[in-house]
Amino acid sequence: MAKGITKRGDDYSQWYIDVILKSDMADYSPVKGCMVIKPNGYGVWENIQRGLDRMFKETGHVNAYFPLLIPESFLKREAEHVEGFAPECAVVTHAGGKELEEPLVIRPTSETIIWAMYKDWISSYRDLPILINQWANVCRWEMRTRLFLRTTEFLWQEGHTAHATHEDAEEECFRMVHVYREFAENYLAMPVIAGRKTEKEKFAGALHTYCIEAMMQDGRALQSGTSHHLGENFARAFDVKFQDQDKELKYAHATSWGVSTRLIGGMVMTHSDDNGLVLPPQLAPLPVVIVPIWRSDEEQELVLGAIRDFTETWDKLFFKVDDRDQYKPGFKFNYWEVRGVPVRIEIGPRDCANGEAVVVRRDTGEKVTMSIDGSLLPRVQALLEEIQRNLFNTAKQRLDDWTFDVDRFEEYKERVGAGGFYRVHWCGDGGCEDKLQEETRSTIRCIPFEAEAESGACLVCGKPSERRVIAAQGY
Amino acid sequence: MAKGITKRGDDYSQWYIDVILKSDMADYSPVKGCMVIKPNGYGVWENIQRGLDRMFKETGHVNAYFPLLIPESFLKREAEHVEGFAPECAVVTHAGGKELEEPLVIRPTSETIIWAMYKDWISSYRDLPILINQWANVCRWEMRTRLFLRTTEFLWQEGHTAHATHEDAEEECFRMVHVYREFAENYLAMPVIAGRKTEKEKFAGALHTYCIEAMMQDGRALQSGTSHHLGENFARAFDVKFQDQDKELKYAHATSWGVSTRLIGGMVMTHSDDNGLVLPPQLAPLPVVIVPIWRSDEEQELVLGAIRDFTETWDKLFFKVDDRDQYKPGFKFNYWEVRGVPVRIEIGPRDCANGEAVVVRRDTGEKVTMSIDGSLLPRVQALLEEIQRNLFNTAKQRLDDWTFDVDRFEEYKERVGAGGFYRVHWCGDGGCEDKLQEETRSTIRCIPFEAEAESGACLVCGKPSERRVIAAQGY
Repeated sequence: MAKGITKRGDDYSQWYIDVILKSDMADYSPVKGCMVIKPNGYGVWENIQRGLDRMFKETGHVNAYFPLLIPESFLKREAEHVEGFAPECAVVTHAGGKELEEPLVIRPTSETIIWAMYKDWISSYRDLPILINQWANVCRWEMRTRLFLRTTEFLWQEGHTAHATHEDAEEECFRMVHVYREFAENYLAMPVIAGRKTEKEKFAGALHTYCIEAMMQDGRALQSGTSHHLGENFARAFDVKFQDQDKELKYAHATSWGVSTRLIGGMVMTHSDDNGLVLPPQLAPLPVVIVPIWRSDEEQELVLGAIRDFTETWDKLFFKVDDRDQYKPGFKFNYWEVRGVPVRIEIGPRDCANGEAVVVRRDTGEKVTMSIDGSLLPRVQALLEEIQRNLFNTAKQRLDDWTFDVDRFEEYKERVGAGGFYRVHWCGDGGCEDKLQEETRSTIRCIPFEAEAESGACLVCGKPSERRVIAAQGY
Repeated sequence: MAKGITKRGDDYSQWYIDVILKSDMADYSPVKGCMVIKPNGYGVWENIQRGLDRMFKETGHVNAYFPLLIPESFLKREAEHVEGFAPECAVVTHAGGKELEEPLVIRPTSETIIWAMYKDWISSYRDLPILINQWANVCRWEMRTRLFLRTTEFLWQEGHTAHATHEDAEEECFRMVHVYREFAENYLAMPVIAGRKTEKEKFAGALHTYCIEAMMQDGRALQSGTSHHLGENFARAFDVKFQDQDKELKYAHATSWGVSTRLIGGMVMTHSDDNGLVLPPQLAPLPVVIVPIWRSDEEQELVLGAIRDFTETWDKLFFKVDDRDQYKPGFKFNYWEVRGVPVRIEIGPRDCANGEAVVVRRDTGEKVTMSIDGSLLPRVQALLEEIQRNLFNTAKQRLDDWTFDVDRFEEYKERVGAGGFYRVHWCGDGGCEDKLQEETRSTIRCIPFEAEAESGACLVCGKPSERRVIAAQGY
């Protein structure tokens, strides 16, 4: 066990915090509920941004930036929206040494300020669709916070699109939840269940919400991304009408969709171990670290020379040589292991003489000897791909092994606290959903897109149900 | 003249605003002093970020993220700093439905919150240097705002570094102002004068400030980037000491440096013309637009087919085909000209028959016929490089032509209002600087690094001066 990291089996919550802090991903700040994202964590966010941004652009989206501060009255224009967000807002009442005429809230999400602008930008069907995304910080005043998973301020992207028809908006909403699923699986190596939220769990102001749900190592669910079909709700609130091809004036249809720095918490809880952080190579700020081993100046020169030779053509951002003089190799092995670097290359004078190096993979700890010739780079790259696949497969196996069909409420109540996803029948009634939540501290996570029609009896009331939903305890 | 754009000669300020709005770079928002950066403007910012971020990483920096909100008391720890920034702060007094125990200010700059963290991160010389940069939004409550140049909220990057010695901090501070100069010249195609700010103009809390100053088309100066040597001021304010190799406890030395979305305003005012925006190819979100010309369905098929053929191997983000059915070619030419796209390719049925297209450069309006074979892409790429060079050379010529040596205060007073940079002798006294400012509404922009020793008499008081400084009216 790495120094200072609680074992998962002893205290999962503490293990998570220990991994984040010891791997230098983040730190607590003096501002209640806000964290500092340190370079080793921010580098992961930069890679998340790069990957997602490419996918957004490939699906026709462009980026823009809207104001941080929103007039308080804007929030009130959409009734459900204000009810959902007003209690969590941070409010600016003074600025430039004076009290403001109208308080401004720090955006908890940007539908209102964006649709206030869309009113000026949309007048004809020719102006549609608008496919805009924003990378931004938002604030939601949370009572209980946890590094990356729930912080008062967090970083995210929020897509806000406007369409001529309900069908176009629905297609967009559906497309984006699938972009999220693809990203989660290919970059985060995190298998997810995509589906629809219940009425109770949908976004404040939406017709419906699609989501991806991931399973953490303790069997609990993490909502990892959401895509909302907002219908005409915000167009009506901000009076956004356009003249359609048939000359009729119509309200525009909206979607919004977002993922946040919470994904980093999900990634940590999916792959990391008792030795610290484990990073999927696709998101690792540093894929490879090389630790030279020497005991004399002569050996040092020999080993560093060999490293210079075999890395000569390597991309400088792909690897780092830890040639720090003041630390021993054992300290360095541990240092980079805790920080999650996917591949470590160890090389000493005897290895150099043999034309070899020891290559250690972070996910399994397995060591392989490789020749330090032209074959090393492609072999290391292949190993990184293998690690990415292995992390996904391990997580997928866990999800499959830990998903159960349960048909009796008593059995569900007994088992759900131990973790896992439960495929249960539900009649669709909000009362049953409330009862399930109250009696088990679990929730219906989603109605999966893949759910096949299956007749059954509601877990709670026994009335007829047409398909199974996923219920679990969540973060 | 493009519809709706005032001529530069008629009203330079109005021309600037017209260009920004008509080119879809930005829009006014309902929040006082805050603007919306639209996709055509944000795309430029993304390219600025990409270029600068690479230069930061190549000089050893990493990115991190610190909280938006700063306890009011933190600002007060550094006397000059609070005096400079407190009057401009936006203040959060309520959050989560309650009044806060201590008000939080929205960061106007992050020295205080970052040095509060550095206190925990720095204890030994081994922890130094820390070379961190942050991409973020900041708020400064300005009385008079102008799109991109001065807005209440703006986007920027702020580097915050910690060093073991004064010399190391000085080297960093100097390095970064040169990174800015290089970036301004190579990406923005904007020649600048790099130098040192006077005591009066330096950053609140700095030992000294280095800057780059650019000349706009009206001859006025725009401060475009600053790098501050903060000495031990913030280490003392936040008690950041480290044990040095000699076992002594010492205060860490700080620098901070930043550029903002203001650069976009500088770029616009350096290159654009009476027809709208002119973008340097290095920063253009869309380098090339192709406008097909047709009158019948048959012609349409022919022309679009030819375009598909010759662009088959082109990068999809390098160009766009404006095949919109509802607009005429003339409308489209104007549409993309106003938006600053560096190269436009026009192609109709006769061109197709001849295996040619007309290539139009945005900077000069010059048209060249090019073959639509394999030679087109390299020729267009060479043309983009030529445009980038030409924009820089034109701006450099303007700067050179419009920089004057003036030795009599009366002459300076008469001339400075007409624009231009004035190389004047200054004794170094703050009183003379105040007098110059009061009587001419101009300021000493910087003491250039390149200024050669030259004996002279202070423009204002006539006392001995050892070198010339740059004075001008500024934005």
